Amino acid sequence: MSADGEALSVEENGGTYVFGADRPLVLESGANIALEVAYKTYGRLNADRSNAVLVCHALTGDQYAASPHPTTGKPGWWSHLIGPGKPLDPARYFIIATNSVGGCMGSSGPSSINPATGKAWGLTFPVITIADMVRAQAMLVEALGIDSLFAVIGGSMGGMQVLQWAADYPERLFSALCVASAARHTAQNIAFHEVGRQAIMADPDWRGGDYASLGVRPEKGLAVARMAAHITYLSEPALQRKFGRELQRDGRSWGFDADFQVESYLRHQGASFVDRFDANSYLYITRATDYFDLAETHGGVLANAFTKAREVRFCVLSFTSDWLYPTTESRHIVRALNAAGARASFVEIESDKGHDAFLLDEPVMDSAIRGFLASAATARGLA
Amino acid sequence: MSADGEALSVEENGGTYVFGADRPLVLESGANIALEVAYKTYGRLNADRSNAVLVCHALTGDQYAASPHPTTGKPGWWSHLIGPGKPLDPARYFIIATNSVGGCMGSSGPSSINPATGKAWGLTFPVITIADMVRAQAMLVEALGIDSLFAVIGGSMGGMQVLQWAADYPERLFSALCVASAARHTAQNIAFHEVGRQAIMADPDWRGGDYASLGVRPEKGLAVARMAAHITYLSEPALQRKFGRELQRDGRSWGFDADFQVESYLRHQGASFVDRFDANSYLYITRATDYFDLAETHGGVLANAFTKAREVRFCVLSFTSDWLYPTTESRHIVRALNAAGARASFVEIESDKGHDAFLLDEPVMDSAIRGFLASAATARGLA
Repeated sequence: MSADGEALSVEENGGTYVFGADRPLVLESGANIALEVAYKTYGRLNADRSNAVLVCHALTGDQYAASPHPTTGKPGWWSHLIGPGKPLDPARYFIIATNSVGGCMGSSGPSSINPATGKAWGLTFPVITIADMVRAQAMLVEALGIDSLFAVIGGSMGGMQVLQWAADYPERLFSALCVASAARHTAQNIAFHEVGRQAIMADPDWRGGDYASLGVRPEKGLAVARMAAHITYLSEPALQRKFGRELQRDGRSWGFDADFQVESYLRHQGASFVDRFDANSYLYITRATDYFDLAETHGGVLANAFTKAREVRFCVLSFTSDWLYPTTESRHIVRALNAAGARASFVEIESDKGHDAFLLDEPVMDSAIRGFLASAATARGLA
Repeated sequence: MSADGEALSVEENGGTYVFGADRPLVLESGANIALEVAYKTYGRLNADRSNAVLVCHALTGDQYAASPHPTTGKPGWWSHLIGPGKPLDPARYFIIATNSVGGCMGSSGPSSINPATGKAWGLTFPVITIADMVRAQAMLVEALGIDSLFAVIGGSMGGMQVLQWAADYPERLFSALCVASAARHTAQNIAFHEVGRQAIMADPDWRGGDYASLGVRPEKGLAVARMAAHITYLSEPALQRKFGRELQRDGRSWGFDADFQVESYLRHQGASFVDRFDANSYLYITRATDYFDLAETHGGVLANAFTKAREVRFCVLSFTSDWLYPTTESRHIVRALNAAGARASFVEIESDKGHDAFLLDEPVMDSAIRGFLASAATARGLA
C-alpha cells in the first residue's frame, strides 16, 4: 500500500533460499559451499513462467533493489527503475533480485556461519568469482521454478553477471541488459580495488579477517576503502560541479578537519558505508571483479563467450563520463557480440555524472531500458 | 669525479641554511616559525649572479634533484634533466634545489624539533601553503646573495611554486617553467588527497600525529595513502601496457595475496615510500596543495596573479595523458598569462605515461625545456 492508501501493483516477497547439503554451490576454485541465497521479488510470475527478470546488483548493492534498505532505510538502489509505471513494472514482470554470493545481506559469504565451526567463515570462506555468483543465481531461479528468464539486467558488477549469464546459461535467457560495465577488469580497476583491500587489511581491527568472532570491526579501514572507491564512481566534472572548492565554513581551518565540502562528503560516504557493509565481503567481492575476464576464460577471445548466445537479445549501455568502466569497454563487448553473431543494441548516454549515473535518475537510460524491454516483451509474446 | 675518473663540471654543494630567530618565516596563516631550509646546489654562481635556476620539487620530492637519495640511493628525481650536456647544465647554470618547508628532508616541517619543547612538532606545526614554501625559498635565494633568478622550474607541486613565484616575486624572476601542474586544486584532486590523509590518520600508530615522540610510525596508513596517490600519477593506458592483467605466478592464488603484477607493484610503491617519507609531512604538504588556488588569492581572477609578471618569460608544459593535472588546467594558466599580457609558450606533449611523465625520460619535454632556456639565456646575456 502506498502512503495515500492506493494499492500499488507491487507484490513483494522474498527471503533466504537454503539449499540442502546435497546441493552445494560448486565454485570455480574447485571448492564448494553450502548455499544460501537471500532474495527479493516484485510482481508475480505469470502462468507461462515467461515474465521473470533477474536484477543483478553492483559491488556493494544487495537484494533491496526496490525496497527500503533494512539498515539505512533508504529507498532501494534501483527504485527509480522498478515500480508501477516504471521500466521494470511489477505489474508486468516478475522481478527477482538476489544478494550475490560473497555479500553480507543474507547470502553465503565470509560473514556467514561456517557450519563446521559454528563461527563466521572470515578468510576461510573460499574465494568466489562472478561465474560463481551467477551459478548461485541460476540455482535460485531454477528453484523458483523458472526455466527461462525473460531478461537479466545489471549495472557495473551486475553487468558482469549479465555477460556471464549469457556465456554460461544462454538457453535460459531471452534478453540481457548490461549497463556501465565491462567484460574484464583493467589494471587500473584492479589497482583501485587493491588500495581498498590494503586499507582494510591495514586496520588492526581486521584481525586477519577474524574480527567478527572477536567482536570488533575494521571500520576505519573499510571507510578509507570506500572513500577511494567512491572517487572512481563520480566524474571529475561532477565533483567540480557539486563541490568545486567550496569550504565547509567561512575560511580555512588551518588544520586537518574537513575544510572542503568534498572532504566532508567523502568522509560521510566512508562513515555511512561501514554501517551497512562487511569488510570481508568487500575483499571477496572486489576480488571476484578483479578476477573477471570473460575473454580469458574463453580462449582469449571474448566473442567465444557469446557463440551460444546468438538468440539472446542484448542491450549494452554506457555513460560518456564513466571512467571506471568507460565506453571503450562497452564497445569491446558490442564488437564481441557482433562477431559472435548475437544481436546487440548499444547506446552511449551523455551524462557528466560518471559511473554512478546508472544508479541515478537518467531519463535516457530509463527510456532505453523501457524501449528495449518493450520490444523484447513483444517478441516474447508477453502481453 | 665520474666513475672513470673524468672530471665532470658539476660542482655540488648544499646543506641546511639556518635562519636566525630574528628572521622567522611569516606564514600565510599568521603564524611564524624559526626557519631552516635544506638545499643542494649544482654548478657555480657566475660573477653577475645571473645564472641561478631554482628547481622546485613535487609533493614528495626533495632537494636531491640530481644527487643520489640518501635513503634509497636512487638517482636524483630530475637527474635526466640536470647534468653535463643536459638541459639544466651545471657548467652553465647555478642550480638550486630546496626541500620545501613542511617536508621531511631537513627543512622546517612537522618532524622538525620544536625548540620550545625539544620534541617533534607533530600536528602543532602550523599549516603551511604553497606561498609559504615559496617565501622560504625566496629567503634562501636572497641569503645566497642572488637578487634575481634566471629561472624557476618545477613540475606538479613544483609548478605551483613556479606560478606562486611569478605572482609574489616577479621582479626577482627572469623566466618560469611550469610543468604538469595547475593553478588550483580541483575537487577531485582534494578528494584523492583526503583519502590519503584519512588512511594515515586511521592508522593507530599515527597517535594523533605524536608518533615520533612515541617511537612508532604509521607505516601502513602512509603506504595506503601512497598507493592511492600513485594510481593518479599513472595513466590507465600506461598501467594497462605495463601490467595489464598479468599474474605474479602461474594461475590465481584464490586468496588475497598480490595475484596481479599491478597489485605487487602498488604494494611495493607503498612499502618503499614509507622508508623515505614522513606521514605528518604528507598531511602538511597535501594540505598545502589542496589550499592552492592562485585565482582565489587574487580576487578570483587568475590573470590578476600575473599582472606584475609581464616581463617574465613563461613556459608551460603538459602531458596528454595526465589526468591529475590535465592539459585543460595548463591551458587555463596560459589563458591567464595571455590575459595579463605576459609572454607564454605552451607545449602539450604527447605521452601515455600520465602525470609521472614529467619525472621520466620524455625527449620532447627535455628539448622543450632546453630550447626555452637557451632562448631565455640569450635574452639574459648568458654566454
